[in-house]
Amino acid sequence: MTMSLSAELWPDVQPETARRLMLAGVEAFAQRGYHATTTRDIAGAAGMSPAALYVHFPSKAALLFAISRYGHEQTLALVENVVAKEADPVERIRLIVEDFVAWHARRHTVARVVQYELQALPEEEFEVVAQLRRRIERIVREVIAEGAASGVFAVSDPHISARAVLSLGVDVARWYSDRARQTPTALGKEYGGLVLRMLGVTPETPVTD
Amino acid sequence: MTMSLSAELWPDVQPETARRLMLAGVEAFAQRGYHATTTRDIAGAAGMSPAALYVHFPSKAALLFAISRYGHEQTLALVENVVAKEADPVERIRLIVEDFVAWHARRHTVARVVQYELQALPEEEFEVVAQLRRRIERIVREVIAEGAASGVFAVSDPHISARAVLSLGVDVARWYSDRARQTPTALGKEYGGLVLRMLGVTPETPVTD
Repeated sequence: MTMSLSAELWPDVQPETARRLMLAGVEAFAQRGYHATTTRDIAGAAGMSPAALYVHFPSKAALLFAISRYGHEQTLALVENVVAKEADPVERIRLIVEDFVAWHARRHTVARVVQYELQALPEEEFEVVAQLRRRIERIVREVIAEGAASGVFAVSDPHISARAVLSLGVDVARWYSDRARQTPTALGKEYGGLVLRMLGVTPETPVTD
Repeated sequence: MTMSLSAELWPDVQPETARRLMLAGVEAFAQRGYHATTTRDIAGAAGMSPAALYVHFPSKAALLFAISRYGHEQTLALVENVVAKEADPVERIRLIVEDFVAWHARRHTVARVVQYELQALPEEEFEVVAQLRRRIERIVREVIAEGAASGVFAVSDPHISARAVLSLGVDVARWYSDRARQTPTALGKEYGGLVLRMLGVTPETPVTD
């Protein structure tokens, strides 16, 4: 199970040993926090020696950076894919929210580390991740500004609206659990509707169902 | 400065030494996480010996619990005050969001500990805090359901809407900093407007300003 989960989480990471260490890192960081976790803890949880960990990651910070960077690259890819395949601002925002929310629900443990351990990254690595975050936020802001310019959205400040849209998705990682009442996909759809209304889109069909 | 800040944060806590320890705890937990912080670190930051800390808090967990409980009691009080003084569901939600968001922005370091270190609480203490959280969420849900019943809100699921409303506020603690573009009060007002639209309230005045 662990092997297939790690391959599902990080299909681009090779070898499998590196993925196994990332998964052990995610679990340890999510449970006790980055600072309270040692490389020995992580290596042990992955059934390896600390020396074997250093073959793949030169430090605990390097492991956190790998988890954080892949997480941000994956969410950036979701957002970019939507923009590439869909031109209408309303549909763009709806699909971005659906995918972004579903990712944070489905990957809630990974997402917690990705979203809440940023300040533990060393300065240079933080800057790499911060750039990915700015790209995500800029795309969302531009889609909102585009919809506002064409009159389909009514927003007073695209910066604040973009921040609020992403906040709704990020915070899902904090509260979502496998016992949640809704699947990640269903939650994404529900939030897509909430966000469109937040941006001033009047639903064509009645919202109550 | 530290003394007056701690009195401002926890006006009901006496003596000042206890407040000073809570403030040192907040700073340490927010920076390195609960598990990586020792009572010695906290006592040292407050200029005391570990023995002096134990006079006020029998354990690190007791200190976290005090920070968490007061934070939740304060946000519950905000929500209860609004409901006590205002009867209209639209105004209730607007004021709840304004106050809740402003609290999480103004108190962002305290709020981070309050919102993100819940799982570090021992079981019994966690249950006390969880009850406060359920009361906050229930009030928001009831106000939304009341507005939906009277037709001023259009929501498909008051549970999800309430969660989303609170999520927007909680997540402010994650990203807000003293360098943010908006004051806590201004951000609260902006979010109040966003939430009303999310709940299907059509603004009487144009949103763009």
